[in-house]
This record gives sequence, structure tokens and C-alpha cells, in this order.
Amino acid sequence: MSKEVKPESVSLCPLGMTAAPEQELLCIFGTGDFGRSLGQRLLQTGYRVVYGSRRPHSCGPLPQGAQVMSHEAAAQSAGVIFLCVHRENYDFLETLVTQLKGKVLVDVSNNLKKNVYPEANAEYLQRLIPGAHVVKAFNTLSAWSLQNGPSDASRQVYLCGNSAEAKQQVVETATKLGFNVLDRGTLSAARELEDFPLQLFPEWRLPLRLAFGLTAFFFFYLLIRDVVYTYVEQDKDISFRIMVSLANKVFPIVSLIMLSLCYLPGVVAAFLQLYRGTKYKRFPDWLDRWMLCRKQLGLLALGFASLHVLYTLIIPIRYYVRFRIAESTISKIKENQTSVFDTTMAWRVDSYYAMGILGFGLYLLLGISSLPSVSNALSWREFSFIQSKLGYLTLFFCTFHTYLYGWDKFLRPSYYKWYTPPGYMLCLVVPSVVMALKLVILLPCVDRSLTRIRRGWERTDPEGDSKKSLLT
Amino acid sequence: MSKEVKPESVSLCPLGMTAAPEQELLCIFGTGDFGRSLGQRLLQTGYRVVYGSRRPHSCGPLPQGAQVMSHEAAAQSAGVIFLCVHRENYDFLETLVTQLKGKVLVDVSNNLKKNVYPEANAEYLQRLIPGAHVVKAFNTLSAWSLQNGPSDASRQVYLCGNSAEAKQQVVETATKLGFNVLDRGTLSAARELEDFPLQLFPEWRLPLRLAFGLTAFFFFYLLIRDVVYTYVEQDKDISFRIMVSLANKVFPIVSLIMLSLCYLPGVVAAFLQLYRGTKYKRFPDWLDRWMLCRKQLGLLALGFASLHVLYTLIIPIRYYVRFRIAESTISKIKENQTSVFDTTMAWRVDSYYAMGILGFGLYLLLGISSLPSVSNALSWREFSFIQSKLGYLTLFFCTFHTYLYGWDKFLRPSYYKWYTPPGYMLCLVVPSVVMALKLVILLPCVDRSLTRIRRGWERTDPEGDSKKSLLT
Amino acid sequence: MSKEVKPESVSLCPLGMTAAPEQELLCIFGTGDFGRSLGQRLLQTGYRVVYGSRRPHSCGPLPQGAQVMSHEAAAQSAGVIFLCVHRENYDFLETLVTQLKGKVLVDVSNNLKKNVYPEANAEYLQRLIPGAHVVKAFNTLSAWSLQNGPSDASRQVYLCGNSAEAKQQVVETATKLGFNVLDRGTLSAARELEDFPLQLFPEWRLPLRLAFGLTAFFFFYLLIRDVVYTYVEQDKDISFRIMVSLANKVFPIVSLIMLSLCYLPGVVAAFLQLYRGTKYKRFPDWLDRWMLCRKQLGLLALGFASLHVLYTLIIPIRYYVRFRIAESTISKIKENQTSVFDTTMAWRVDSYYAMGILGFGLYLLLGISSLPSVSNALSWREFSFIQSKLGYLTLFFCTFHTYLYGWDKFLRPSYYKWYTPPGYMLCLVVPSVVMALKLVILLPCVDRSLTRIRRGWERTDPEGDSKKSLLT
Repeated sequence: MSKEVKPESVSLCPLGMTAAPEQELLCIFGTGDFGRSLGQRLLQTGYRVVYGSRRPHSCGPLPQGAQVMSHEAAAQSAGVIFLCVHRENYDFLETLVTQLKGKVLVDVSNNLKKNVYPEANAEYLQRLIPGAHVVKAFNTLSAWSLQNGPSDASRQVYLCGNSAEAKQQVVETATKLGFNVLDRGTLSAARELEDFPLQLFPEWRLPLRLAFGLTAFFFFYLLIRDVVYTYVEQDKDISFRIMVSLANKVFPIVSLIMLSLCYLPGVVAAFLQLYRGTKYKRFPDWLDRWMLCRKQLGLLALGFASLHVLYTLIIPIRYYVRFRIAESTISKIKENQTSVFDTTMAWRVDSYYAMGILGFGLYLLLGISSLPSVSNALSWREFSFIQSKLGYLTLFFCTFHTYLYGWDKFLRPSYYKWYTPPGYMLCLVVPSVVMALKLVILLPCVDRSLTRIRRGWERTDPEGDSKKSLLT
Repeated sequence: MSKEVKPESVSLCPLGMTAAPEQELLCIFGTGDFGRSLGQRLLQTGYRVVYGSRRPHSCGPLPQGAQVMSHEAAAQSAGVIFLCVHRENYDFLETLVTQLKGKVLVDVSNNLKKNVYPEANAEYLQRLIPGAHVVKAFNTLSAWSLQNGPSDASRQVYLCGNSAEAKQQVVETATKLGFNVLDRGTLSAARELEDFPLQLFPEWRLPLRLAFGLTAFFFFYLLIRDVVYTYVEQDKDISFRIMVSLANKVFPIVSLIMLSLCYLPGVVAAFLQLYRGTKYKRFPDWLDRWMLCRKQLGLLALGFASLHVLYTLIIPIRYYVRFRIAESTISKIKENQTSVFDTTMAWRVDSYYAMGILGFGLYLLLGISSLPSVSNALSWREFSFIQSKLGYLTLFFCTFHTYLYGWDKFLRPSYYKWYTPPGYMLCLVVPSVVMALKLVILLPCVDRSLTRIRRGWERTDPEGDSKKSLLT
Repeated sequence: MSKEVKPESVSLCPLGMTAAPEQELLCIFGTGDFGRSLGQRLLQTGYRVVYGSRRPHSCGPLPQGAQVMSHEAAAQSAGVIFLCVHRENYDFLETLVTQLKGKVLVDVSNNLKKNVYPEANAEYLQRLIPGAHVVKAFNTLSAWSLQNGPSDASRQVYLCGNSAEAKQQVVETATKLGFNVLDRGTLSAARELEDFPLQLFPEWRLPLRLAFGLTAFFFFYLLIRDVVYTYVEQDKDISFRIMVSLANKVFPIVSLIMLSLCYLPGVVAAFLQLYRGTKYKRFPDWLDRWMLCRKQLGLLALGFASLHVLYTLIIPIRYYVRFRIAESTISKIKENQTSVFDTTMAWRVDSYYAMGILGFGLYLLLGISSLPSVSNALSWREFSFIQSKLGYLTLFFCTFHTYLYGWDKFLRPSYYKWYTPPGYMLCLVVPSVVMALKLVILLPCVDRSLTRIRRGWERTDPEGDSKKSLLT
């Protein structure tokens, strides 16, 4: 850039350094997938690239336009060397200590597992070649994303290193390649960076454990209440019901509890803020962790709800159900019964299904709006409208659906087999509590206090004035 | 880059300004969520950050590496000051008028509601501190997106301000943080920028109103034709049918009408272009607005279609349906009827369902290809193939599905209760018209004219030559 | 930035050329959609824009702030000219040969079809105006994406041209507009760039052909086995079963085969690597092509599975099914049969459905994680966990589902009508083979060898040492 350079240069080259007669030369060690993709990308962006290889004359297909040399020659020709080699093979670098002195050595390596080595690859490299300026970078990218150009999430590049100048050089290259760079500090952060690509859903662990725990609990609870009870009391084997009937009780129960657990922490946080009279005190750790996994809780709940829907829809084609319906028709005829159509029953059953469908429809909407590309396209207010207002509406529909399922069974003792309440009653506790607390928060007087606190107001305390917190 | 500079500088620092020995210092007023996130992000990108605080020694947790000073000292130390404070508290700035003179003051504030104040926050700020160069920027970002680095849609930053130099400084910082910047002009655009985060689905309003209106109309229409008619004429209460049967008539009707309304404006526009003989005249406003909300119309239609599918699939587990089926079997036996299998009926019902399923499958495909990340990955031709060709196929399947539902009822007078046509007949009008018009457009002679017009050709008119419009 | 420069310049203008007193002037020829959108975007980013028009005084609405001049004057005033005109109208440029000499001429044009002209538009342009530096660029963007700012996939801009300096100028402008630029070399690449927007799912062709072929084959196979066989042997017309029953046999068969074809190439590749003892030999071409379309195979398989689910769920509301059920109930009563509940049957049918639902649920999960925005948000390990581990689990569930469907029919000769096996037996071949081979690969000894090979180890061969390949 810098227009001032214009007069000094040829008419078509007013662009200072970028259009410099000779483009910068970069060196890559290693001709594996990653090395080749990186080289190709660098060439496409206008760099010159030289590969360092032990066998420069037989090292397989390389991107068009790249040179190949011995490691020594390649290292000497460039100021920046990308090391695309597995850690296990770093030792060959020891023979290049003099050539690498003062050079920027970019370590892109990853390990296959966490905690295999006592120190990070990049730290080990720095110890091996103390004279080089080691920068850890690009390790979170795949050869694939390098070849195809950066896209949304894979646009982010992390780097760390001890030399600010060396890092700056790598930042410039990465920026030219179209990446956004985040500097994570000194080389001591290399371990953290090397662990990134090995992450396996860290933010899903708590919700998954919870889902698994709830599923296991309710499965055994209902197994005992339904199958074992029938076997013991009536000496009938209905174990075949495990596959569909029992599963179709467990799934909606877990789904409703997890959906309400999405909204509970928000309500708890509101009451905490009201109690403390300020938003400037940090929440306890457990609440913070809980709030951070609400999205995952909700998506798992949606998964269980979807299974519940599918399990419900196949009911009429089950052998057991067809058999039962045929039996009941036959027995009616044989006993010459005349059954009367029960309008209340029709209202109740239809409302029950309608609530379920509308709740599930909204649920799907919440899920779709959680897709990264959709939520990115929403303004903050739109996102919070969907996740909060529509979210509570979903919770209401689903809870009401469950109440309609229970209907008048809440008061009939025959449903409390072995003095235990049915599953759907247990699962109504949390959502009912959440909705009651939310109603309290929606009361105008409570709502007003909360809004004031969230805008920064603090309940006056002896040592300060109410205004300070807004400004500091 | 810029190899020429290399000789003059230290070996590892060939990078002009960016690798300058001391990194730029930026100042942030306000230590709330946004202030802290912004500071952290700036530090990660390599800036030095100083916070201005009324209580520099007790202002809560700040990002590592940031300094804290009094407002006065902080303002003096930096050239750019980010003001992360609610508008209600701008008045403390009046005491800093001298320190802020000539500085760039970045207003990131938003309001909770539209039109609360007579002037935009940034304009108010400029009036308060006339000596500073106020720039409105970053207000569309959340603290969250700042902390996590920019992603797709949240990568866009809008700014406005009266000083081009001040804006340029903010542009540079935003670009370094990884954002794309759009300059919206002078500070008079601040109001518009401050309204962005308060938007609540502006482009969904028209389609939502239409959907609501159609739903209400058809609900009452069918309520009268079905429930009220039966009550008046046959004195039977079938009000329980509202929850599922009636809803399952309203949803597909609204869905089909809205789907065809997606495609109607395109057809109308084509005829308008044919009539005018040019594509260079603007469409009337209503048509423009209509064409801009086609995506929303289609997605709402898909929502209604999904509800229709779920409502249809629960039919066999409804109490009413089971009761009716049992009744019919029992009556058959009692009256010793022998019903004959009707092959035509089987063909018709199965075709009806198959059309519905295939239509819904294509519908889903259209919906999925509307997801931002999917449509972004499609070439223009691919997108138009899906939305246009497959879209019309979807419309055809769904319309045919409805015709099969009607079958021979169109001609039987008994279906015209109280001289009103059934709902599905009403809903067939718009799609039938759209498909007829589309067929006309597909006629080779019409298609040829239209293609020529869309490539820029104009029907010769007295005052010009046919070519001009192509070049201007 | 670069604080050092500050003292020398005006206090607020330390930014080289970008804040230079006068912003760069760019010229646009053509005032169509694309020309106008480009101009608006350039103006928003801070450029000055002049339009060249044959009728500067009557060329329709232009973005605010842009000037309009005659082509001659506009071309002379700027160094870079964007040509937003259809190729058919390039000839007017011939009159501007002198004004365009030495200018950068950016060709953004596309054609409506491939291979209409013998040479690419940009090459033709270069031949027309040999004195200009033609750069092909921006043609993959739509006017729409220009107006709305770049988003994920549409952020990529390709360019090519013979003059490195000219290209560099366009790169700078594109970068300032927020795009990532990929240089595709000299102008001979223009044809390729012009074909990009005309692509119609090139990577979907092979999978679509396969899906179509399988569907056609199994449709006729089952048509003969079911409908024709019944007609010939029992003289009964059950052709109505084509619409739903037959389709609902074809869809799951094709889906399962295509799902297993997703996983077959991975298994084949593993055995090939084991056999060759190295990962450094290229796979045969057919295997490469196969592996590149696995995602498309999987998504098509998911589409067929979804149709299978919908077709299955409407079973109980089909006329044919209701008729059959009523008939069977009536005949039971008439013949006074007492049917006994078969617990094994209940277990089998319920397990069959449960496997199907769980398989389909996982299937959906695989599909969702293939959405670009979701897969971008996953780390490499997470993505491979879902697509590989969960993928094989899906395949297992779906195969098991099909085996349960077959149950004991595999051994009954009556099911082999006309000596042909039923469709579901045929479709079990490929998945069973894939799963058997995968089990072999999972054996500890095989797995260990494979992991070593994939880390770069090579089976020792006479002329080399086992280590070389790791470094080169």
C-alpha cells in the first residue's frame, strides 16, 4: 500500500511491497499431505516455495511451481521454514543447527493422542534447535481446509511463540492466505494448541453424562414398575414391551427434564441477581458451567423428543397393538357390548396430540436456529426472542402435553404401583418448578427490578454510590 | 513482505509498521462484559490496552495484560478510546472534554428499545464532546462474538462518523481483529446502525401476517362449514374435531397457498417484462417487496406442511379414529355385509399419499438448501436449479396431491354445504393459476422472447436503438 | 498504526495511503445489476467510483456518490476499469483502444451456457484490446452477494491474468472489499473460471446416476417378482401396490446399499495400504473418485431412508391396509378362531422397529453434521468420530433392521418366487461384506499395522530404509 511509493516505481506497480518484483520465498520441510497442501496454497497466493527433502530427486508429486532441494540448501534459501514432519522425526534437524540459526521455524505438528510426550512438540523443537525462532501455528487446520481455502470456522489460526518478530512474520503469511490469526502468547501455550485438534466434544460431556444417567435411572425405574411388577403380581411376561413401549416412556421423560434443565439456570441466575442486588458479582462456578452447556442440553433433549415422535408414530403398525385392537373388537362383538362415544375423551386425546405436535414443531425451530449458520444470521434480539420466548412456549406446550397425558390419573391410587409414582409424574416436577419461577420473574415489580440490575444498577450499599458500577 | 526494506532493518523485522517495536495502545472506557471482551480480543491481536475506570483499584476482573488507570490518565495515553458505557452515563465524559480533544471516540453503545431518545447515542456523544472525533462502530457485535472471534455473519462491522481519518483508524483496528468493515457514511447514519441489533425479523413480518390472516380465515370458514353446519343441520356436537381434524385441514390449505404465492411474483414479473419489452424498467413497489419475501413465504409454507405431516401421521392413534374403525367393523359383522375391495380406490389413495410424500420430500430439500451455509456452497446455477426447477416440481406434486384428495367430489353438490365450496377447492385456485401461467412461459416462443429480454434486449422504441441499454 | 510515522503527518492521519487525502478512483463500465452492486460496494468501502456510459445523462439509478461520464472520459480518469457488460457487447471497446492502453481491465462476465464460444470471454477481450492488462475476476460472485457483503462460501474470489502487477491491484481491491483471493495463474485459466458459475452439481453426478440405476433395477426386479408373479401365477391384479408398497421396498433397499457403498471404499483403501505396505502410493483413479463422492452417496442414502420412513408411517391410514385389517378381524369372528399372542413375534417386530428408528436417528445425525456450518465447527477428531464411528454404528443398526425383517424367511423356499431371492436379501450382500471386512481391520494385529502405515511407516524394501518416507 502506501501511495507515496508510486512516483518511484513503474506505472502499474503502486503497491509497495506486495507487488515487489520478486515474491517472498518460503521453505517447507516434509512432502506429506499437509506439506503439499500448504505449498500449493502458498503458491496460489503468490509466494515462491522451496521444499526441503532428503531425496530431492524422488520425493513424489509436488505442487506445480515449487522447487525441491536438499534440507540444507532449502533452509539456507528462506527466512521462514514450515516444518510439516511428525515429531518422531525431528531429530534429523539436529544436523541443520547452523543453517536454522536465526530462522523462523513454524511447527505445524499434532500428535495422535494427548499427553504422550512430557513437553509440547514445539517446545521440544525449540530445545532441539535453540538458535531458531520456533512458532507454533496452523496445527488446527487440515490439509483439506488448506487446499480448499479457508471457510467459516476453519478460518481461525492460532499461534504462539517466544519471538514477537517471528510471530509477526507468520501472522502476515497467514493473513495473506486468508486466515484470521489469534496470538495465544509464548511457546508455553503450544501444549494447549496441540490439544485443540484432539478435542472430542468437551462441551458435550456434562450434558451427555446427564442424559445417560437420566435414561438409565428411568429405564430401570420403569422396568421395575411395569415389567417386574406385572411379572410378580400378575405372573405375566410382558418383557417384549421393553423395545418400544418402555423406550417410548423413557425418551419423552428424559427429553422434558433436559429441556427444563435448559431454562432452570437462567431462572436461578435471575433470582441470584435479585438477591444480591447486582449483576457484577460472578456466579458460582457450577452455575457458570451449567449455563455454558444449555445449548447442548437443549439439542440432546431435541434428539430424545425426535425419538419419542418416531416411536409414537410406529405404534399403529406394531404387532402387539394390532393384536390388541383386533382382540378388543372381537370381544366387543362376542359380548355384544355397545360402546358410547366419549366426547371428553376425544377432546382430551386430540388436545394431547395437538400440544405434542405444536411443542415438537417449536422444538425443531429452536434446533434449526441453533445451527451455526442460522444463528449467525440472526440479530441478537432475534436470537434471544427465539431461544427465550419461543423456548418457554415450547416448554409450556411440552409440559401441558404431559399433564394431558396424566389427566385424572394423578389422583387414582391404582396408578401408584408399589407406592411409586408413574414416570410422567416424576418428570413433571422440574418443568413445573421452572415455569412457576419464571412466572414470578414475569411479575411487573420483579421484572422491573431485574431489568434495572441488568442495565447495571446496584442496590445501594454503605460504601459506594449506586452509579459507580456503571462506569468502571 | 516488502523485501526491499529488509536490508535496512534488523534481520527478523522486515515488516514495516506492523512489527514496530512498540504496539499501538488503545483505551477502553467501561469494564462491563463488552469492554472486557473487546479488551481481551485487542490484547490477543497484539494491541496494548488500557482501561479507564473511576475506581482503577477495584473494578473487577480484567483481561490479563491490560492496564487500568483513571479516566483522565487513560484518555491522555491513547489516541483511540472505545466507549463501552451505557448512554445514560455519558455525562461523566463532560469532565474529560480537554483530555478527549482531537481523540477518536468509538461509540459502541446500543439502546434497549427503538426511539427512546430523540437523537442517536453517537450524535448525542458528538454534541457532548464536540472536540472529539466520534465514530459509531462495533455496536452490532455481541461480547460473545468478540470473545470467540468473528464467524460468518458476525464478521461484518458497520461504522459511521464525520471524520474520514478517524474512521480509517477504526477500520484498521477492526480489520486486524478479523472483521469486514462497511462504512455507512456520516454520523447521521448512527441511528440506523443503532437500530440494527434491535431488529426483530423485519423481513418476516409480511409473510407472518399473511400466514396468520390465511390461517384465521380458513379456520373460521371450516369451523362454520364443518362444526357449525353439523350442529345446526344435524344437531350433533363434533366440536372435538377442532383440535386435530380441523387444524389438519387448515394447515395444508395455508401451506399450499403460501407455496404458490412464492412462485406467483416470479411469473407476474415475467409477464410484466414481456409486456414492457424490457428488463430495465423497475417493477412496481409491491412486486419488489413481494419478491424479496419469497424465501420467508416458502419457509413458513414448509412449517405448515410439516405440521400437516405430523397431524396426518397421528391419525391412526386418535381415540376418535380407533372408535370409528371398530364401529364400522362391528356394524359390518352385525349387518353381515361383504365389502368388495375397490382397486380404483386403492390406486387413488396410494397415489394421493405418494404424491404428498414426494412433494414433502422435495419441500424439505428446498428448505435445507435455504440454510445460509448450504446456499452459500451452491453455485448460482445450482441454487436457481433447486429453487426454480425443483420448486415448481414441488408445487406440482402438492397441487396434484390436493386434486387427488378432491377426486370426484368437485362435481357432487352434497359437498357444497350451505352453497360454499370445501376448503381444498378454494386453496387450489392460486396454485392452478400459477402453474397455468408458468406453462405459458415455458412455451418455446414465449421463452425465447423472455430470455432475450433478460439478456438485455429491448423491444425497439421510436427514440432509441435496441443496443443502448446493454452498454449503459 | 505505526506510531512512529505519527509525528511527520497530521495528527489524525498516520496511515499511509489508506487515509490518503484522496481515495482511489475506480471505473465501472456497465450499469446493470452487477455494475451497480459493485459500485455501491466500492463506495461503501471508501473508493471513489466513476461509471462509463454511452448515455451519461440517462442511464438509470446509480449508487449515491458515483459519477457518470462518457466511456472515454471514465476510462481516462482511472487506472482500473471493471467491465460489467455481456460479452456480446464487447465490440464497443474497440473505439477505446487508446484510452485503455496500459489500464487494468477487469472482466467479470459469465456466459449463459458452457462452450458457446471458442475462447474464454477474458481471452477474447485481451485479443480485442491487446494494450490493456486483462484480469478475469469476480465472475463467481452474484450482484446479490456483492450488495450484502461477502458471506462464507461467497467470500472466495478467483482471478487470473497475464500481468502480475495488474492482478496485484485487483487483489488489493478485492481484499479491501472483504474477499479472499485465489490466483489461478495466467489468462488461460479464464475458461475454467467462467465455467465455475455454470456448474450443476458435478460431484453429485456419479452418486445420482448410481441411485437412479439401483432404483430402476430394483423397481423392475420387484415389479416382476411381486406384481407380475401374482398376476401370472394367481391371476390377481395387485398393480395398485406399485405406488406405496413397492416404492417402500425399493427405497430402503437402495438406501442401505448406498450407505454401505459410502463405507466400502474406506475399507478397500485400508486393505490396499496393508497389501502395499505404504501410504505413499497413490490409489487407483476409480478409488479416488469413489472416495470423493462418499458424502454425496451418504446424503442420497439419507434421502431414500427418509422417504422409507414416511412411506412406512402412512401404512396404517392406507385404504388397502384398513380393508385388510377389517377383513381379518371379520373372518376371525366368522370362523370363531382364537388367535394366541405370540411373544417372540412381538419381540421381533418391536426390535425390528426399534433398530430402524435408532438407525434412522443416527443417520439424521450424520446428515446434520454434514451441513457445512456444522462440520466447520467440529474439530477434525470430532468430525471423524461422527462420520466413522457413528457411521459404522448406523450401518450396523440398518443392516440388523433388515436382518430382523427377513428373520426366518431366508430358509423358506416359498419366498424364492421364480427362483429369485427377495429384494431385501440382495441388499444385504454389500453391507454384510463391508461389516465383515471392517471387523477384520479392527483386529488388534491388523489395526496396529495399519496405524503404523498411516503414520508414514513403510514395509522395508531393498533399496531404502524404513525411515526415509517420513522425512521427504
